[in-house]
Amino acid sequence: MNTEIPVISLQRLPIYLNYLKSLPAERTYVSSGSIAEALGMGEVLVRKDLAYTSAVGRPRVGYITKELISALEEFLCCNSRRNAVIVGAGALGKAILGYGGFHNYGIEIVAAFDSNPEKFGISIAGKHVYDIAEAESVLKKLKAELAVICIPAEHAQEAADRLINCGIRAILNFAPVLIKAPDGVAVRHIDVAANLAILSSMIEN
Amino acid sequence: MNTEIPVISLQRLPIYLNYLKSLPAERTYVSSGSIAEALGMGEVLVRKDLAYTSAVGRPRVGYITKELISALEEFLCCNSRRNAVIVGAGALGKAILGYGGFHNYGIEIVAAFDSNPEKFGISIAGKHVYDIAEAESVLKKLKAELAVICIPAEHAQEAADRLINCGIRAILNFAPVLIKAPDGVAVRHIDVAANLAILSSMIEN
Repeated sequence: MNTEIPVISLQRLPIYLNYLKSLPAERTYVSSGSIAEALGMGEVLVRKDLAYTSAVGRPRVGYITKELISALEEFLCCNSRRNAVIVGAGALGKAILGYGGFHNYGIEIVAAFDSNPEKFGISIAGKHVYDIAEAESVLKKLKAELAVICIPAEHAQEAADRLINCGIRAILNFAPVLIKAPDGVAVRHIDVAANLAILSSMIEN
Repeated sequence: MNTEIPVISLQRLPIYLNYLKSLPAERTYVSSGSIAEALGMGEVLVRKDLAYTSAVGRPRVGYITKELISALEEFLCCNSRRNAVIVGAGALGKAILGYGGFHNYGIEIVAAFDSNPEKFGISIAGKHVYDIAEAESVLKKLKAELAVICIPAEHAQEAADRLINCGIRAILNFAPVLIKAPDGVAVRHIDVAANLAILSSMIEN
């Protein structure tokens, strides 16, 4: 684990990476100042965040764009290859199964799980849907380390416990409930409704 | 806008609210210490966050659970009523149109927009899909203030500009690209692939 980098900095690395990849090929150099300006952040913050990677900026010219992209990709394990599974083949699970953006980060979605027998054995976006009761053997066979939970809140902890017991080491949880996991298992939570509520409370009246 | 509260604190308020709502009805009082312990946070942090709301804790007993829930709901505008639209009636847009969790926060998804003529006029989870070219009149008629962008990155900024011109005041963006908006328009970004990448980089090797 990149224990030295605060999560708050880690969260910004994909934003820098997306921005750098959007630059035209002729931008050989990029400065922390120009990144900061383009993304509406402070320059000191950008420089501090990037210092966690192996990229080295040069006085006056900044970073070599290609090198900085490589350093960020290395830090974010984009060149490694990790397998992920989706738990819950409902509407959200289907949307994530069909999303192509994981490849850029070296992540492949390899299968889905569901508890509804009608879904066992079907294929969504080319991915097989397995019975969640088979998680142990399937996860072992597919060498999956990451899981995305897309099931109702009341079943999320139970599913997480099962996945962790079967060797899953990181969970992205869409259920609107806090998932508890032992040390060594990373959990992130995306609550879509809460995000919209936060925005709503930011609207000026 | 609740300008006094840092976004980082605001982001935690729905987590407290979810937790408090999960408590049994007989828990008349709840202390910042017990909230902190249940959620794995620091007690000082919890107390500071809750101090932004109108809730007042009492020495030794803590907060009256009902009062704290009400204070959080008030802060998060759960009792107001705001309308939201979904832009992009693809797999993710459909999943969000069908999600029932927005009501708890006083938000109603009232319609969707798409640019594919085959989708104009259809209904998804009871919500009408309109031509994005009709945004101005539809948004006015439906009094929508929030929008959720679920379209590919290359069209996201254009869609956001159009929505903002039509009066949208807050945008939740699922496209993996930074959306620029003028002052007074709040934007939040959920990059699902980046979240999985962050988790991947947190796995201990």
